[in-house]
Amino acid sequence: MPSFDHSAPDAPDLMTVLRALADPIRLEVVQTLSRVEYANCAALLGDRPKSSMSHHFQVLREAGLVRTEIQGVQHLNFLRRAEIDARFPGLLAAILQS
Amino acid sequence: MPSFDHSAPDAPDLMTVLRALADPIRLEVVQTLSRVEYANCAALLGDRPKSSMSHHFQVLREAGLVRTEIQGVQHLNFLRRAEIDARFPGLLAAILQS
Repeated sequence: MPSFDHSAPDAPDLMTVLRALADPIRLEVVQTLSRVEYANCAALLGDRPKSSMSHHFQVLREAGLVRTEIQGVQHLNFLRRAEIDARFPGLLAAILQS
Repeated sequence: MPSFDHSAPDAPDLMTVLRALADPIRLEVVQTLSRVEYANCAALLGDRPKSSMSHHFQVLREAGLVRTEIQGVQHLNFLRRAEIDARFPGLLAAILQS
């Protein structure tokens, strides 16, 4: 399936992940994706401008938090929960329950 | 004991804490303070300029991560581990073990 470039699962360092999460919109995307299997961009966009959201998705992908797959005309976004949990045990759980 | 203004233990929100931690110098200060009872500013300064470190300490205090007490001519810095653990269970543990 075509997809965007994504960082290797073991590539992002803690600083990159913390910076990616230290933004209310990106944290909301991660929170939403933690509750569903995946979501397309429209579902995550809300009433926010698409251009700024593209930047947020890119930051999340580069931090290894989100994987985006292209299916037809849709971009499907998945939280890379297992990879993040393996690399930073307990981090997402602590943040998502806060 | 005189001290700086500090945020109330229940005041800082997750975003403020994540932003405070999403900086390599501030994260290093938190890591160092997690291993000792307290440290004065000189011990945490390294060879970095004092002015920029003052800003970092202020950010850490405002996020409720660090308490600074004035003892004579020294500023003693403590990690507010118990308060942060109570408010964001598991967060510091996950970050400090990464």
